[in-house]
Amino acid sequence: MKRFSFLALISLIFIAATAQNHHKIQSPQVNDDRTVTFRLKAPKAVKVSVSGDFAPYHAEMTERNGVWEYTTPEPLAPELYSYSFTVDGLRMNDPENVFRLRDVNSISDIFIVSSENGDQTADLYAVRNVPHGTVANVWYDSETFGTSRRMTVYTPAGYESGKKRYPVLYLLHGMGNDEEGWTTTGRAAQIIDNLIAQGKAEPMIIVMPNGNVAMEGAPGETSWGLVQPTGMLPKTMDGAYEASFPEIINFIDKTYRTIRKREARAIAGLSMGGFHSFHIAKEYPNMFNYVGLFSAVVNPRQEGVTDVYKDYETKLQRLFGSKPELFYIAIGKTDFLFDENVAFRALLDSKGYPYEYFENSDGHIWRNWRIYLAQFLPKLFKK
Amino acid sequence: MKRFSFLALISLIFIAATAQNHHKIQSPQVNDDRTVTFRLKAPKAVKVSVSGDFAPYHAEMTERNGVWEYTTPEPLAPELYSYSFTVDGLRMNDPENVFRLRDVNSISDIFIVSSENGDQTADLYAVRNVPHGTVANVWYDSETFGTSRRMTVYTPAGYESGKKRYPVLYLLHGMGNDEEGWTTTGRAAQIIDNLIAQGKAEPMIIVMPNGNVAMEGAPGETSWGLVQPTGMLPKTMDGAYEASFPEIINFIDKTYRTIRKREARAIAGLSMGGFHSFHIAKEYPNMFNYVGLFSAVVNPRQEGVTDVYKDYETKLQRLFGSKPELFYIAIGKTDFLFDENVAFRALLDSKGYPYEYFENSDGHIWRNWRIYLAQFLPKLFKK
Repeated sequence: MKRFSFLALISLIFIAATAQNHHKIQSPQVNDDRTVTFRLKAPKAVKVSVSGDFAPYHAEMTERNGVWEYTTPEPLAPELYSYSFTVDGLRMNDPENVFRLRDVNSISDIFIVSSENGDQTADLYAVRNVPHGTVANVWYDSETFGTSRRMTVYTPAGYESGKKRYPVLYLLHGMGNDEEGWTTTGRAAQIIDNLIAQGKAEPMIIVMPNGNVAMEGAPGETSWGLVQPTGMLPKTMDGAYEASFPEIINFIDKTYRTIRKREARAIAGLSMGGFHSFHIAKEYPNMFNYVGLFSAVVNPRQEGVTDVYKDYETKLQRLFGSKPELFYIAIGKTDFLFDENVAFRALLDSKGYPYEYFENSDGHIWRNWRIYLAQFLPKLFKK
Repeated sequence: MKRFSFLALISLIFIAATAQNHHKIQSPQVNDDRTVTFRLKAPKAVKVSVSGDFAPYHAEMTERNGVWEYTTPEPLAPELYSYSFTVDGLRMNDPENVFRLRDVNSISDIFIVSSENGDQTADLYAVRNVPHGTVANVWYDSETFGTSRRMTVYTPAGYESGKKRYPVLYLLHGMGNDEEGWTTTGRAAQIIDNLIAQGKAEPMIIVMPNGNVAMEGAPGETSWGLVQPTGMLPKTMDGAYEASFPEIINFIDKTYRTIRKREARAIAGLSMGGFHSFHIAKEYPNMFNYVGLFSAVVNPRQEGVTDVYKDYETKLQRLFGSKPELFYIAIGKTDFLFDENVAFRALLDSKGYPYEYFENSDGHIWRNWRIYLAQFLPKLFKK
């Protein structure tokens, strides 16, 4: 009888060691005092810097024995940060860090700084030792567009083993993004897992469809092949997607154990997804009880392939006449859509339409959208 | 009434254009003749090469106007290839390509070369215009290990909308990999989608659990935080995982519409996952009707925390006495486990235990495992 071959074991360890070979230095390293150290082995480089949303500048790194290093001078606030290196003018990812996120066509390395007490908004972005929901990529047949289309669906912990019905949040992505944006850069699954575990949000299904109707799904996940993503896709804001939205709701109501009532439906989105959310809610005023606009485009397009953008004020009146439980608007002070949102709120005010408003710093960035989602979720389905 | 703000639209287009700014060159470019061109904009670099599994050497690139370029001298055989650049000694990913795969702790860019007629094995690796199954990341509670643990589950197209019960393949990953390996680098969802659409494989559920019992799930998906993956993890081959496997089967049988019979269960894995598959099948001889060992470690460990590796020949006799429909072994000629598999087959031959054997070129690489999976799937659940 042959026993486990020693040679095979050694070979396996060798493979493992070889694969680890270039990982002898650690980067990024989140230090105990919440400063962060970045390192890059680049003995032949002349100039290396690190940049990202942790600082408003390219930080020059200093070299010693071929390893370039930079430590932030101050502790970083708890947050999920992204960064990359620039080596002699060439942007590159951190070879020591496998955790990366794609946003449209740019890939950045990420790290998370947690707080001491675990009680900050950013602490919701980490995977914690709590019950976890399921995240699935699901295809539905779109009659409107004549194709199968891909969506990401979160079902809360206990969904599979139980018989309960759940409320549904439809959560829409921004321009150039796709059905994976909210669960990758948006950390939506971690945020809702943690909020449910803390008793701060109701268990719910979150449906994240793809709003780029020219495509079947995220780049690389369609029959187009491995086609590089671009920022602007055709047909994203022409009314067709908004008008078609009931087919997504029908698919979800048929496929999942949902509560099929307006009281148990919410819709929210960021940027273009906020635009979609608003115009869908306006077109179907008895469909959603909660509406969230995160850094949203709001003003209707002048042209569209459907009537969705027509009769704006009448539909607005109908929407608020249906008395949604929550109409939530959030935007950052330096967002390029800030003025448009100021004007939109002035319109709502002039008509006496009630809404909840949150304003913070910064502009059109994912950090804000994670914050808005973490704020929005606890407000849903409390009745 | 305010219409869509022209300024906002311009800003959106500007953002899209900025994000695209460094994407003016195309890389990789799969040419019509199946040669492939790689490009990297690096005006200050002195020496740039590209390497990957498309060639056995680092190919030197030539520079023109700051853009380095290399075109393969010959057409490439249809396949999914991975590559990276080396810029003045520094390995980096292709900034023009968002399609990357992580294998253990190394991230490579990928591209797919398809065949003219779409009838090659590699054509199964592309997303095609066929019905798509759902790919879900699901957590189960492990009583054995006292934690929630993560798995990836594929359910075939039609699962959600129907009432049918399905057979199940348990598909196990290799050392240093995790529950995501088979659906990322392994292209398992594309392979089974395409084989089902062609009528070559039965619709089935594929369950891809995590065999690293020291962890709850893939790196970054556990409460350990964003901890970089390493090749070798503790407790992966000590018998505990193999002995615990019925709790995974019970979870699946309770959660999904499975056919709860041996005739409708298969188990297969690559490398360490082949080792796991073999010893699980041997320990529970009435559980699986189909067993697949892809480049597998086979010989039992001498020590273990359970009795799984004990009474090897008796258990082997019991396994083959139960007359599994298929016992499939596949390995490449230059695999470091080749000799171990030769000895294993000699043992099976000496006892008259029947098995199916496939041998091809190359070694311990994902290309082989995709090929073996594509071979194995059509053999399952035909009765």
